[in-house]
Amino acid sequence: MSEVAGKMSIQEGAKYLECPMMGRGILLGGVPGVKPGEVLVLGGGVVGTNAAKVAAGLGARVIIMDIDLDRLRYLDDVMPANVRTVHSNAHTIRRYVQEADLVIGAVLIPGALCPVLIHESDLKLMKPGAVIVDVGIDQGGCVATARPTTHSDPTYIVDGVVHYCVTNMPGAVGRTSTFALTNATLPYALTLANLGYKRAARQDPGIARGVNIQSGRITNRAVAETFGMEYQPLEL
Amino acid sequence: MSEVAGKMSIQEGAKYLECPMMGRGILLGGVPGVKPGEVLVLGGGVVGTNAAKVAAGLGARVIIMDIDLDRLRYLDDVMPANVRTVHSNAHTIRRYVQEADLVIGAVLIPGALCPVLIHESDLKLMKPGAVIVDVGIDQGGCVATARPTTHSDPTYIVDGVVHYCVTNMPGAVGRTSTFALTNATLPYALTLANLGYKRAARQDPGIARGVNIQSGRITNRAVAETFGMEYQPLEL
Amino acid sequence: MSEVAGKMSIQEGAKYLECPMMGRGILLGGVPGVKPGEVLVLGGGVVGTNAAKVAAGLGARVIIMDIDLDRLRYLDDVMPANVRTVHSNAHTIRRYVQEADLVIGAVLIPGALCPVLIHESDLKLMKPGAVIVDVGIDQGGCVATARPTTHSDPTYIVDGVVHYCVTNMPGAVGRTSTFALTNATLPYALTLANLGYKRAARQDPGIARGVNIQSGRITNRAVAETFGMEYQPLEL
Amino acid sequence: MSEVAGKMSIQEGAKYLECPMMGRGILLGGVPGVKPGEVLVLGGGVVGTNAAKVAAGLGARVIIMDIDLDRLRYLDDVMPANVRTVHSNAHTIRRYVQEADLVIGAVLIPGALCPVLIHESDLKLMKPGAVIVDVGIDQGGCVATARPTTHSDPTYIVDGVVHYCVTNMPGAVGRTSTFALTNATLPYALTLANLGYKRAARQDPGIARGVNIQSGRITNRAVAETFGMEYQPLEL
Amino acid sequence: MSEVAGKMSIQEGAKYLECPMMGRGILLGGVPGVKPGEVLVLGGGVVGTNAAKVAAGLGARVIIMDIDLDRLRYLDDVMPANVRTVHSNAHTIRRYVQEADLVIGAVLIPGALCPVLIHESDLKLMKPGAVIVDVGIDQGGCVATARPTTHSDPTYIVDGVVHYCVTNMPGAVGRTSTFALTNATLPYALTLANLGYKRAARQDPGIARGVNIQSGRITNRAVAETFGMEYQPLEL
Amino acid sequence: MSEVAGKMSIQEGAKYLECPMMGRGILLGGVPGVKPGEVLVLGGGVVGTNAAKVAAGLGARVIIMDIDLDRLRYLDDVMPANVRTVHSNAHTIRRYVQEADLVIGAVLIPGALCPVLIHESDLKLMKPGAVIVDVGIDQGGCVATARPTTHSDPTYIVDGVVHYCVTNMPGAVGRTSTFALTNATLPYALTLANLGYKRAARQDPGIARGVNIQSGRITNRAVAETFGMEYQPLEL
Repeated sequence: MSEVAGKMSIQEGAKYLECPMMGRGILLGGVPGVKPGEVLVLGGGVVGTNAAKVAAGLGARVIIMDIDLDRLRYLDDVMPANVRTVHSNAHTIRRYVQEADLVIGAVLIPGALCPVLIHESDLKLMKPGAVIVDVGIDQGGCVATARPTTHSDPTYIVDGVVHYCVTNMPGAVGRTSTFALTNATLPYALTLANLGYKRAARQDPGIARGVNIQSGRITNRAVAETFGMEYQPLEL
Repeated sequence: MSEVAGKMSIQEGAKYLECPMMGRGILLGGVPGVKPGEVLVLGGGVVGTNAAKVAAGLGARVIIMDIDLDRLRYLDDVMPANVRTVHSNAHTIRRYVQEADLVIGAVLIPGALCPVLIHESDLKLMKPGAVIVDVGIDQGGCVATARPTTHSDPTYIVDGVVHYCVTNMPGAVGRTSTFALTNATLPYALTLANLGYKRAARQDPGIARGVNIQSGRITNRAVAETFGMEYQPLEL
Repeated sequence: MSEVAGKMSIQEGAKYLECPMMGRGILLGGVPGVKPGEVLVLGGGVVGTNAAKVAAGLGARVIIMDIDLDRLRYLDDVMPANVRTVHSNAHTIRRYVQEADLVIGAVLIPGALCPVLIHESDLKLMKPGAVIVDVGIDQGGCVATARPTTHSDPTYIVDGVVHYCVTNMPGAVGRTSTFALTNATLPYALTLANLGYKRAARQDPGIARGVNIQSGRITNRAVAETFGMEYQPLEL
Repeated sequence: MSEVAGKMSIQEGAKYLECPMMGRGILLGGVPGVKPGEVLVLGGGVVGTNAAKVAAGLGARVIIMDIDLDRLRYLDDVMPANVRTVHSNAHTIRRYVQEADLVIGAVLIPGALCPVLIHESDLKLMKPGAVIVDVGIDQGGCVATARPTTHSDPTYIVDGVVHYCVTNMPGAVGRTSTFALTNATLPYALTLANLGYKRAARQDPGIARGVNIQSGRITNRAVAETFGMEYQPLEL
Repeated sequence: MSEVAGKMSIQEGAKYLECPMMGRGILLGGVPGVKPGEVLVLGGGVVGTNAAKVAAGLGARVIIMDIDLDRLRYLDDVMPANVRTVHSNAHTIRRYVQEADLVIGAVLIPGALCPVLIHESDLKLMKPGAVIVDVGIDQGGCVATARPTTHSDPTYIVDGVVHYCVTNMPGAVGRTSTFALTNATLPYALTLANLGYKRAARQDPGIARGVNIQSGRITNRAVAETFGMEYQPLEL
Repeated sequence: MSEVAGKMSIQEGAKYLECPMMGRGILLGGVPGVKPGEVLVLGGGVVGTNAAKVAAGLGARVIIMDIDLDRLRYLDDVMPANVRTVHSNAHTIRRYVQEADLVIGAVLIPGALCPVLIHESDLKLMKPGAVIVDVGIDQGGCVATARPTTHSDPTYIVDGVVHYCVTNMPGAVGRTSTFALTNATLPYALTLANLGYKRAARQDPGIARGVNIQSGRITNRAVAETFGMEYQPLEL
């Protein structure tokens, strides 16, 4: 579902940049003769990659940030020319947040809370009417001022910056999401059905990593740390 | 402003394809493993060209139609690979409307009403939850069931098809539109201010074409025909 | 040689879509104003990737299918915009086979027979004059009705569908194939010549996997399964 | 139909470069590690432009020649990176013919014979097994050794060079060609039917240029010159 | 030769941005993780178009400015995604000059002096070590502080900004320039040789425009105005 | 820093191909109507990949060579259409060196001397005025005639071929290089500071590989071999 959320994040951002939505009144792609908008994507994983592709497709100038240099190299190889990679650290985030019309929070760490990358004080540096879409809101989000919203009331404003933090974003494009989810989960489901969870987890490390609880014990390290509980390895 | 409206039309269409907006629940760009949406753009002028570019950038499969073969050739030269040109006629329109998730009405004839290209009976052939954005609504629109809406209440539904027919679409991205409008009109304004309208119209045929009324006479042929009045050539 | 076969498969398919070859009379790339052909590539490995690239280059609309989601993501990153990835399963294959003008069978499993993905009953659903090129024919092919043909008599017709199932396709472009084969095999040959097969296999797992028989025992699992014989691991 | 012929010319050339077809045994697109074929397109009009696009799409290295510098500039703007423009003259033609694996004759002058650009002596300089496709064969062709062939016996060999000179090439992809032809001619047909030829020719210079004979007099200058007859202007 | 100068201007600019050349020490294309340089191209004609293409190819972020909206639209259609078009006026020039690492002066008006677009006061707003390449220096240049330099001593510094204003830039790539010049001029030379200048000028308006002096009278309006002399139309 | 050096190598090569720099007087990108230059990049690692991208961006025809077929396949997937991959061996190097206007030596083996790929006798086969940039000069270079030069006196000529072999190339673009270096090294520095070298090396194999000497013993195999000393594994 990360791909759906990543692609949607730009569509939503573009929409809420409109004046009637309290945004800056910017068309992300610009037009011939008028400079396009600036999009900052925090995180170069599946969510961020898909967000950057769509933003580039709309015609925006895009910066995608990550801490993994090999990932930045790969992105540099495959992204369109209007996407640029920048190494992520406190200094670069603070700098580019100020230039951005749209910021996408795309930092998701499986089973753990997102680190906070944009602090409340950063909002005052941002352009009035800029938009933040925090895709990781289900895991706390990477923006200090993010709090969950819904499809029926998706945005709120802090310091003049529009926040879009809808949980379960892919639900809005149910048809596409259903196919995507089925594609991603069907092979696991078949393996589990055919082998039972123990044999399945022995055979496929991906399934093993997916077992969070076993007989009352927390068997996923990130989950255990998040809830301050004891981690115990999976027993097969 | 045509460029702004053309680019916005896809953003709006993408938004209203979402389930909470009563659309089909389709993500236009698809995701890896799930086929993207189909976009049909009626008209290959400035509006249609910009709409097609943005739709292609989102990752959709796009068909752009026009009756001018030279224009189709040019579009074939410069458009991304997921945009295909098709010659526009009653037969091809009817065929591709049925396959489309999003239809953009981009047929604008300066000073005249749009021809009706999509008839009420065509709606029944369309997919339920498909979206029509009729950019030419200010000139009547090219969809029989189109009627003007506003940014605060932008859509209505006929036969299961979402209609977005907001007049003055570019108003929603006022910042971008203001720059675009100024770019386009400033040279004319300077010429008119420096020369007066008669000398300006003699020197620049574009200005001459822009004179619709002179001393009570209709001097623009399209305007005269639309209102059933007599056309008289401009006197300079 | 997979790359050669993959690229050739589209050239051959394009040729046999011509009327004098009993095909549908379709130009794969279309022309400005006329929609291009639809190509379905079954399998996203080396053969399928090269087939999809060439089909996209000709201007066709291409769908490439695979069961591996990570591979689909990579293909989504690097393929031209007119190639779309779709998750492969019985349902999606049956659906897109009906829309295709050209189907490429590109499912090759090293040392094993291809699984049958297109059944005889599917042919009746296909467009008359559509073409199937089954690149995996040397390993049985993934089309139920595929049987080996030759460069001198390359095609036959079943249920109106042209079948091209030439074994050793790369032989037709001997000059290119010779260079390609030498590039791929020379490093192995040098290693074998320098070290002998045992030390070479110990050092390079690729060579170890290439040893099918050792002292009369079948040491490749896929080969053993295909012929219903006992598999025994390689002894080094 | 020029677009159809231009696109087909590369497909045919690719096919007849195969060994069983007496060609060099070259795969036009090459494969990773093996250099692609060289394609020379003589003429940058509609035929040549479409040929160059398809050849580039296959992955070949393409040179397109024309004498019109503005046309070369436009082609440089819109062609893929593996197409290069070269100014056409006797010197450059002779040079690049020697490097080419495939030569496309795409020089068509409406109503006139093609100029001869490749002379019999040039064939001896070409690579053995190279292929020439002369699209202008209906108007004599631009290759001295070209003579008309048919879809059932399409090629012959002179000095080791395969000649493909099928007249009415688009006939082989009848379905695509019919749509293309209808798109291009329908507007003229409607105008002629509505207005009669005299009023139609007065109104549309394209129709006027299409009138070759009027009351027994030759009214098209190129036709008159070709047949050594007197040219008389059209009387309307 | 404009194409040669346009392409060279970026190569020279990239070189003189190096520290040992007194530039900012910026690599125009950036690298994965580090933002690329900003290039501002003043003028969207042949010089500017080629400069923008090369700058984009290096990986820089490029803005190209012109006052002609139709030209900007065309450039928007054909330029890579990292080139953006901006309408040129005193306000936008002043704004983007401050952000630029490299400024290309590409405003050439045939036979007339360049207008001054960058004033001495603008230099103080620029980044220290930024580079200006003024391609129109042969016609006075569009930068107030530009004065002609040579290939052997190509640059000087004003207010910390490196100026490269070599006259006859294409001379440095004599081999390429000779071919380019011959391509552009040969057709005119042949026409003049075959017809004499009077008949040639009657037949080809391009040649007519090229006649600057006839029997002691100035027959080119721009030349006449530049030198404050009387313009008299060409007599044929 | 490899990325910086790779990108710079083409800028330098382009500059020294100019006549005043004793080069061939070739503009790498060509112009419409004149063929571009040929660039040969030896090595498909980070240096070579970046060099090839920039050369392609300038508009040159590029060949990139490597011995690793998987790497060539990846490059074929992500490189622009004017970059072609060729398998590297003595035969292909010798062939393409003769056609090249610019050769980039991009063969770097961590901690070891470069192998010599271009021999003194090859220079006589090269075009007069061609340029060689040997990026691996700090490790001996892959060109037999390479010897270190400096930014203040960067080139010398052997057999008519310009050699650019500046050590520490990235120093010339200090601003970009500093950011790039910090991005690449900061994570290692933080790990080392937090954990000490032993725990850091245990945790991160990249750090372990970076330990060349431990308590007077050579712990890096390539370094040991280069200096003919004994290699001893790292003790943690």
